[in-house]
Amino acid sequence: MINPKLLNQFLVEPGSEVNLKEYVTDWTETDNAKELGKDAIKERAKEILEQSREEMNKAQELLYASDTHSVLIVLQAMDAAGKDGTIRHVMSGVNPQGCQVFSFKKPSAEELDHNFLWRYMKSLPERGRIGIFNRSYYEDVLVVKVHPEWLGPGAPAKPDKHFWEKRYEDINNFEKHLSRNGTLVLKFFLHLSKDEQKRRFLERLTNPDKHWKFSEADLAEREHWKSYRKAFEDAISATSTKRAPWHIIPADRKYVARALVADIITTSIQGLGLEYPKVSEAQLAKLAAARAKLEGSDKDVETES
Amino acid sequence: MINPKLLNQFLVEPGSEVNLKEYVTDWTETDNAKELGKDAIKERAKEILEQSREEMNKAQELLYASDTHSVLIVLQAMDAAGKDGTIRHVMSGVNPQGCQVFSFKKPSAEELDHNFLWRYMKSLPERGRIGIFNRSYYEDVLVVKVHPEWLGPGAPAKPDKHFWEKRYEDINNFEKHLSRNGTLVLKFFLHLSKDEQKRRFLERLTNPDKHWKFSEADLAEREHWKSYRKAFEDAISATSTKRAPWHIIPADRKYVARALVADIITTSIQGLGLEYPKVSEAQLAKLAAARAKLEGSDKDVETES
Repeated sequence: MINPKLLNQFLVEPGSEVNLKEYVTDWTETDNAKELGKDAIKERAKEILEQSREEMNKAQELLYASDTHSVLIVLQAMDAAGKDGTIRHVMSGVNPQGCQVFSFKKPSAEELDHNFLWRYMKSLPERGRIGIFNRSYYEDVLVVKVHPEWLGPGAPAKPDKHFWEKRYEDINNFEKHLSRNGTLVLKFFLHLSKDEQKRRFLERLTNPDKHWKFSEADLAEREHWKSYRKAFEDAISATSTKRAPWHIIPADRKYVARALVADIITTSIQGLGLEYPKVSEAQLAKLAAARAKLEGSDKDVETES
Repeated sequence: MINPKLLNQFLVEPGSEVNLKEYVTDWTETDNAKELGKDAIKERAKEILEQSREEMNKAQELLYASDTHSVLIVLQAMDAAGKDGTIRHVMSGVNPQGCQVFSFKKPSAEELDHNFLWRYMKSLPERGRIGIFNRSYYEDVLVVKVHPEWLGPGAPAKPDKHFWEKRYEDINNFEKHLSRNGTLVLKFFLHLSKDEQKRRFLERLTNPDKHWKFSEADLAEREHWKSYRKAFEDAISATSTKRAPWHIIPADRKYVARALVADIITTSIQGLGLEYPKVSEAQLAKLAAARAKLEGSDKDVETES
């Protein structure tokens, strides 16, 4: 497990004004990290990922058995920041029966004909499960803030500051509702530098095996880098709450991002203090009766030849 | 990979009349297996499971990339036959982003107010994904055949043979529709002996860590063992089709069941002959242009400081 003090530096203090330039994208370049050396960090990151996955597996079983809470993990980032890879590497060890991933694409006409939280509400994890939103309702204050023309019917042509503030408030109230009703909400922004995005796009353009992953739209969105950064800063500042905090994860090194996300999810679930269901005296008596019945006369209504 | 000839013995030939007594529940007791010895079988089963999981991971990536097919896995069985454990052990290595598990419980009032396939239709896997139904629309010809009083409003009080035949036909037509539209449907009946069920129930009743898994309802259903067996035989006989075959998997040994299910799923997906998407000449030209743009003047509309 990572030192909680270290983890705290990635947590966005509720009420603070986020300036993404103050958050590193390559953690191996920090003073702390330089002391350790890159090889040691990579080694340590892999250990943490492995250990977290094992513990997450146990934590998820307990989550399922206790049946009192669910976990919602929100992943947001610029293109190529590693959302898909993070999900694959962090969650692959977990029982798929206890974990559901939803990727949200361009909304359908039916979805646009509803309130903006509607389609996400339908995909929330049930009690006992971990739900992962690969993109989420935050797109409704990110991509559409950069492209207000995509807001859909009924929205103002030029939404003003108040329009977005009301959406942030709706999101905060939605997450408050989730949290009050037993959902642990964890939000991660995978923080990628513009240079590293370029490197990853070029890899997709150069390596024939990765061609199919490239979309011209990604390149078009890159031209709006600054507007996206501003939209992320505004959204994260307005919605990092005690109940549903944001973590800004340095994402230029995949192994760093994966270890951090895995550790934060695992320790957060463990922090819920869940317990296996207690069996009452009355239930114990019923179990004993059932056992006696099963051991004794299993010659019931229908006998098996 | 398991010899296809061996696998064939678990496949229900379309049109055949299934008598479950002719299918083994403990494969290690067959002549084939006795020659090998139990220890060797256990060892080999673990190897097959491990190997299948690795290959399934690759097969699932290809399924996702090619984006032409989806896979629906239906798991049915008597209680304690190991559905949950099979899902955990067979699918845990797969990217959870490409795999969704749905467990169907007692239908809600809203669900009962629709046609019986309605709630399953809503949970089908999207293209590129593996969907697992832990129980399925087959419950609508199994548990409610044993308990017709649970059929819900609008159903006949005493459904006759034709009622069930129409449901089988509906299911076959539904699966034909799925198959025609790119869904590979694989159905598994985990075949457990009544003795082994008793042993597993007793374990749940004896081991305090497993108490929470025991439900009195399970014991009540055990009294209808024969009726369930008959319902399974009828349903499997009527719905094992070339497009959507049933496999009857000996489930008294968990390691045998898991290795068989894993191998059948993996080889079936591989059998689809999927390929990574080909990039056309026109697309290649676009990729080259994108690359030139990215490498050259990345000083776009919005520059990054």
